[in-house]
Amino acid sequence: MRHFFSVNQLKEDEIIRVLHQAEQLRLQQQSFTKQLFAANLFFEPSTRTKMSFIVAERKLGMDVLDFHADYSSTQKGESLYDTAKTFEAIGANLLVIRHQADYWMNELKNQLSIPIINAGAGKAEHPTQCMLDLLTIYQEFQQFHGIKVVIAGDILHSRVANSNAHTLRRLGAEVYFAAADGCKDNNLDFPYLSIDEAVECCDVLMLLRIQHERHREIFINNKDYLRKYGLTKERERKMHPKAIILHPAPINRGVEIDTELVECERSRIFKQMNNGVYTRMAIIKKLLQERGIIHETIAEKRKKTVING
Amino acid sequence: MRHFFSVNQLKEDEIIRVLHQAEQLRLQQQSFTKQLFAANLFFEPSTRTKMSFIVAERKLGMDVLDFHADYSSTQKGESLYDTAKTFEAIGANLLVIRHQADYWMNELKNQLSIPIINAGAGKAEHPTQCMLDLLTIYQEFQQFHGIKVVIAGDILHSRVANSNAHTLRRLGAEVYFAAADGCKDNNLDFPYLSIDEAVECCDVLMLLRIQHERHREIFINNKDYLRKYGLTKERERKMHPKAIILHPAPINRGVEIDTELVECERSRIFKQMNNGVYTRMAIIKKLLQERGIIHETIAEKRKKTVING
Amino acid sequence: MRHFFSVNQLKEDEIIRVLHQAEQLRLQQQSFTKQLFAANLFFEPSTRTKMSFIVAERKLGMDVLDFHADYSSTQKGESLYDTAKTFEAIGANLLVIRHQADYWMNELKNQLSIPIINAGAGKAEHPTQCMLDLLTIYQEFQQFHGIKVVIAGDILHSRVANSNAHTLRRLGAEVYFAAADGCKDNNLDFPYLSIDEAVECCDVLMLLRIQHERHREIFINNKDYLRKYGLTKERERKMHPKAIILHPAPINRGVEIDTELVECERSRIFKQMNNGVYTRMAIIKKLLQERGIIHETIAEKRKKTVING
Repeated sequence: MRHFFSVNQLKEDEIIRVLHQAEQLRLQQQSFTKQLFAANLFFEPSTRTKMSFIVAERKLGMDVLDFHADYSSTQKGESLYDTAKTFEAIGANLLVIRHQADYWMNELKNQLSIPIINAGAGKAEHPTQCMLDLLTIYQEFQQFHGIKVVIAGDILHSRVANSNAHTLRRLGAEVYFAAADGCKDNNLDFPYLSIDEAVECCDVLMLLRIQHERHREIFINNKDYLRKYGLTKERERKMHPKAIILHPAPINRGVEIDTELVECERSRIFKQMNNGVYTRMAIIKKLLQERGIIHETIAEKRKKTVING
Repeated sequence: MRHFFSVNQLKEDEIIRVLHQAEQLRLQQQSFTKQLFAANLFFEPSTRTKMSFIVAERKLGMDVLDFHADYSSTQKGESLYDTAKTFEAIGANLLVIRHQADYWMNELKNQLSIPIINAGAGKAEHPTQCMLDLLTIYQEFQQFHGIKVVIAGDILHSRVANSNAHTLRRLGAEVYFAAADGCKDNNLDFPYLSIDEAVECCDVLMLLRIQHERHREIFINNKDYLRKYGLTKERERKMHPKAIILHPAPINRGVEIDTELVECERSRIFKQMNNGVYTRMAIIKKLLQERGIIHETIAEKRKKTVING
Repeated sequence: MRHFFSVNQLKEDEIIRVLHQAEQLRLQQQSFTKQLFAANLFFEPSTRTKMSFIVAERKLGMDVLDFHADYSSTQKGESLYDTAKTFEAIGANLLVIRHQADYWMNELKNQLSIPIINAGAGKAEHPTQCMLDLLTIYQEFQQFHGIKVVIAGDILHSRVANSNAHTLRRLGAEVYFAAADGCKDNNLDFPYLSIDEAVECCDVLMLLRIQHERHREIFINNKDYLRKYGLTKERERKMHPKAIILHPAPINRGVEIDTELVECERSRIFKQMNNGVYTRMAIIKKLLQERGIIHETIAEKRKKTVING
């Protein structure tokens, strides 16, 4: 057989032999060295989060399945549930999902045998972003108690404002918001400061992206926004010596932040991206271990005891 | 050299050294441990088939080249033939192709030195889908003789109805069709049953997807379709105790099949997807072995003799 | 934890443990066996160049990050600079970039700590294409002195005409152009020949693609173009016995070249593609070595001395 174009190329006994071979390959799987597949199902655009997951998965030695909504059976109307079940059926050991629905997790959580990581749920949650923000703060202050964090910008459309604010409060931080009128979220119970009050008191200034694509109209021009609500060079100079700047990116340069501050000394913006890889590795390891998919080696356990102990 | 932006960065003797280095790398290839590249050229959307091939290739230890028609020179008008030759030239050892033309194989079959697998040809053929359907039936009944198979649904636009029907007949099964009027194919010589006759007599009910995108108009609304031609819960209850349900997916839930039956006890729909991986591994191995690209180890041969013998 | 949907699933001490784990993973990196990531950032369509880089990277044992402009934060308005910095931050050890701007390199060259390879800059440069063309000529003639090269076709819109012409002249070749009136570039100082003069005198006929997408209007129909300016079978018969034909592809068959000549005996078109892989491997190795990212083994050095010496 030079090519495989049609079943008609195979005689009956050849067909049976291929079936036997397939069955044998299926049964052999158990004895193979563990080869683990991570499937990244992104139904919304992403560079940072997706690539960061891919690097994390590859660093953990996983094989990566890369799904593009536009090239797939989603175009034929397939549901998220059926897509997820498909990846489970073809051998994925982990799903990483970003989807525009706020609560896509609900239709999946009890239906799949493999672990799922939320890489973004509409404007509701983005918990690995939250975790990497926490890591960046923790690296700086070695704890969260009494740390003053101001989350500033498009609170209303952000999927990190909510989880960051609550989680930081749970960990003992003092959390404030700062936002223009069209960007406030009255459902969240945190005190609002003006941006000028914010820069003077905060240890951490966590800027958010203005999500132009989610605003009905651009309510203000960019230059005015920066001057009224953003981090200008004047405001940056008023920050505490040890205060740091975070931003989940992508950045609207010259809108939320003066372009020259993006890589200033107190900016941890690219550090956050770097931390994203290790945070995601830690989350993936935790899930795979707790599910019994991988086992911690004794050497690793010992090391961990030393570090944590 | 910090970056490589221009040939002008290289002095003449440096250029020659790079050329020597390239030539040396080319000649060394022969002595490398065999690294095999599979290129998946999908000119039509696919989740299941494409991802299943990728998993199969990775499980066989192949490197995967992932081609997207929309990001490629196809946009500059490059033909399938030139695209295929390009992948051969850059080192692919196997091509897996899905293309909208019914007979795309004809322009390639005698022109390439590497094996090609048909992953879908217009509405003509989809032989690896056929093979995985066969495996799913074979796992259930351990043979095909006298097994009653009804292929039900959009026979006219299906690229599996034809090859499945003929191949199952070749293997000794009794094959019937069931279809709404706009979905029958008068070129295929198989007896038609009503869906109600079908469910009562079949061992295997092989449902097909209504290919809305290939029908000029939606000839009937979805609910009516299910009631008149689809697998309702009432019909499912009339099936033989050991009869099974197949569907190549993606499924139009509530059209071909009641949504609650997709994962019912006699459904093998997700099992089919799982079998797809091992079927494709078996086909790839067979082609690479018959082309002398890989060699069966003695250990494998011995195991196979035991299983087949 | 079955899935990871929300930070609310984690108690405070669990959060801290995950942060410790992430920090530990980050610090361990140094002691890992070197795992190198190449990120291919293509903002314009490409088959050949992109796939050729992927094969080159994989053959060198690198992990590949595949970036699609259409699925990324580019859609949210992110700049090339911020995209590049992002890939650096998440762990890329090499960037391969194609972008529609002629001088995209300028905003990156002093800002990133990792090497960057130009895989196409607007219509200005495409240096790895130049290098692979050189290799193809060098394989044929073992030197460049006195070799007559005619670059024929859409000189004006080609990003290889310029660098090829200058580099070949630097290496001692005699370089001529041949082009229709709308395709000439008066900024380049090389003598023009008619295509009929060209075929009779050249050792190398380097055809270029008519870039229909960059011409305002199709200035001439395809058949007329071939007859007046392209390589017809009549013209090919007038070439020197040892003269060769190059084309960077994708080819407009029947426009620049008669379709039957694409794979004729003196065509090196698919050989060029094959050479592309090894040329890119050589460039990548050179950059990574000169940056101290990888180290040449003694065995390799010895071999090289023998070959070059």
